[in-house]
Amino acid sequence: MGFDYPPAGEAGKLDQLEIRNFMYDLIIIGSGPAGLAASIYASRYKLSHIVIGEETGGQAVNAWQVENYPGFEKIAGRELMEKFKSQAEKLGAEIVLDSASKVEKGGNGFSVHTAGGKIHEAKSVLLALGMKPRKLNLPNEDKFIGKGVSYCATCDAAFFRGKSVAIIGGGDAAGTAALHVSEFADKVYMVYMENGLVMEPTWKEQIEKNPKIELICCTKITEIIGENAVSGLKYENKEGGRELAVQGVFVEIGSTPGVVIAQNLGVNLDEQNYVVVDATQATNVENIYAAGDVTTGSNKFRQIITAAAEGAVAAGSLYRKLKLSKK
Amino acid sequence: MGFDYPPAGEAGKLDQLEIRNFMYDLIIIGSGPAGLAASIYASRYKLSHIVIGEETGGQAVNAWQVENYPGFEKIAGRELMEKFKSQAEKLGAEIVLDSASKVEKGGNGFSVHTAGGKIHEAKSVLLALGMKPRKLNLPNEDKFIGKGVSYCATCDAAFFRGKSVAIIGGGDAAGTAALHVSEFADKVYMVYMENGLVMEPTWKEQIEKNPKIELICCTKITEIIGENAVSGLKYENKEGGRELAVQGVFVEIGSTPGVVIAQNLGVNLDEQNYVVVDATQATNVENIYAAGDVTTGSNKFRQIITAAAEGAVAAGSLYRKLKLSKK
Repeated sequence: MGFDYPPAGEAGKLDQLEIRNFMYDLIIIGSGPAGLAASIYASRYKLSHIVIGEETGGQAVNAWQVENYPGFEKIAGRELMEKFKSQAEKLGAEIVLDSASKVEKGGNGFSVHTAGGKIHEAKSVLLALGMKPRKLNLPNEDKFIGKGVSYCATCDAAFFRGKSVAIIGGGDAAGTAALHVSEFADKVYMVYMENGLVMEPTWKEQIEKNPKIELICCTKITEIIGENAVSGLKYENKEGGRELAVQGVFVEIGSTPGVVIAQNLGVNLDEQNYVVVDATQATNVENIYAAGDVTTGSNKFRQIITAAAEGAVAAGSLYRKLKLSKK
Repeated sequence: MGFDYPPAGEAGKLDQLEIRNFMYDLIIIGSGPAGLAASIYASRYKLSHIVIGEETGGQAVNAWQVENYPGFEKIAGRELMEKFKSQAEKLGAEIVLDSASKVEKGGNGFSVHTAGGKIHEAKSVLLALGMKPRKLNLPNEDKFIGKGVSYCATCDAAFFRGKSVAIIGGGDAAGTAALHVSEFADKVYMVYMENGLVMEPTWKEQIEKNPKIELICCTKITEIIGENAVSGLKYENKEGGRELAVQGVFVEIGSTPGVVIAQNLGVNLDEQNYVVVDATQATNVENIYAAGDVTTGSNKFRQIITAAAEGAVAAGSLYRKLKLSKK
């Protein structure tokens, strides 16, 4: 399986021509749990395909510890995604480390354009686009990314050894971020909004027992302060305004689906911008399927197990559509 | 988590009274991939629950080799289910080795009666009932169960070392059964019906390469013959009638959902007898949910990964329904 690319570089034009000659059955955009599970099933079904993704594993690699993927008692998100990846590759997947920028409808299928300047063609496309972290949209937020502001506790916790940090949010991601960061930081403020702590009770119990973590309820964040890096955070609640002296601000207030590619294709989105799929994981555009966190599937439960299942269902549906229906 | 039963036996009445005093949040009926995944999520959500099932792992334990569950390149079905089970137990699940015989609607919830004579009560019930093997419905079939007729190649293949056997069916289960049995038997006839071989191309390739396996198409099985044990199989096709001298007949013609309990509860089934579920895995009966192969979910793809995802979604939905909606 897979397709041998000519070496990149000097043979630019030839390269592209040769690639355009090959029409895959399927291009999977996104290499998180949904995309990799779809690839595993696609390989089992002998659907020729590639997986295009910037970083293998999607948002799941940011999960510090996964304890609810059936089959693994405790595993780091990154390690679990390495297992998905190596399984997909052993079954024949070619994973292209690139970013899809545009999908165009062509004569017999679709052209997928990448940030790396390539064009790949396929009869069908699976949008496993995943989610992007939601921002606070505060003035200094972008300026301090990498200088105290982070959207990935797993990636950046270790930079805050002995420091004080604020975790913004009250959901599962914020909860696990607080626990993880508390292994490094001396003080962790968990600053959340009025709707309270809505997370797995397992995490909540651990947080309440953790002496480093202080819960601050019902806040409105007003400012991230600092000169060249974060030095504090201002918020307001019923007790008035207050400033926390923190060197780190972890923003864990959820994610939004990454759907620019879908929008341009005319794919139907729901009112929250999720890609609408039917039971087969098909979208309204023929031969465009979607799977994982970006979809309305699995009751929007958005777990690794549900993303993987959606990827499997999508590949199964495409196999029946592209191969069996021709007989 | 879980509930300590008094020892069974002499304290029969007391036993039952005490059990009746405890109202679980959830009783999961079925201990296959869906039931165990639901338990993993239910424990994470601190839903008090038990899992009732005859054999842990459901039909998945009969899978000789699983190569498409994301996270494991190759694993025996039984081993994967052991992992599910031990993960569920470490998170607090109590797995009751018994068989649910009846579910009754009571005042505040449901009473689950078991073949072992116990009654368990809960606010909600998850039907993870799985599937039962479909039979050929031939006269000698039942008589020869355990004497040559088998519905589980993984369980029984080793009894046919050096012998000739017939595999009935042309799907994935029949294909993997043929491959597995060929490791023991000298000769494997794969006898299938008119609609042909419809299985993962990976299995098909391996079967076509295997010198021990002979494919016999477009048949109607007419008789299983033998005195005290299977000695042959009669079939008809375009070339007329023929008798195969075989000592084993593996029936791999699919499964039917095991829905007696659901029917008695008034749960809606579709025309093929699958339990109709919505996106939250709820049935039409309030607080009765269903997950796994027995449902209309996951586009009826019926894989371990989809069953597990449905179990997870069901537990998540029940958590929101039973716990969050009270706040």
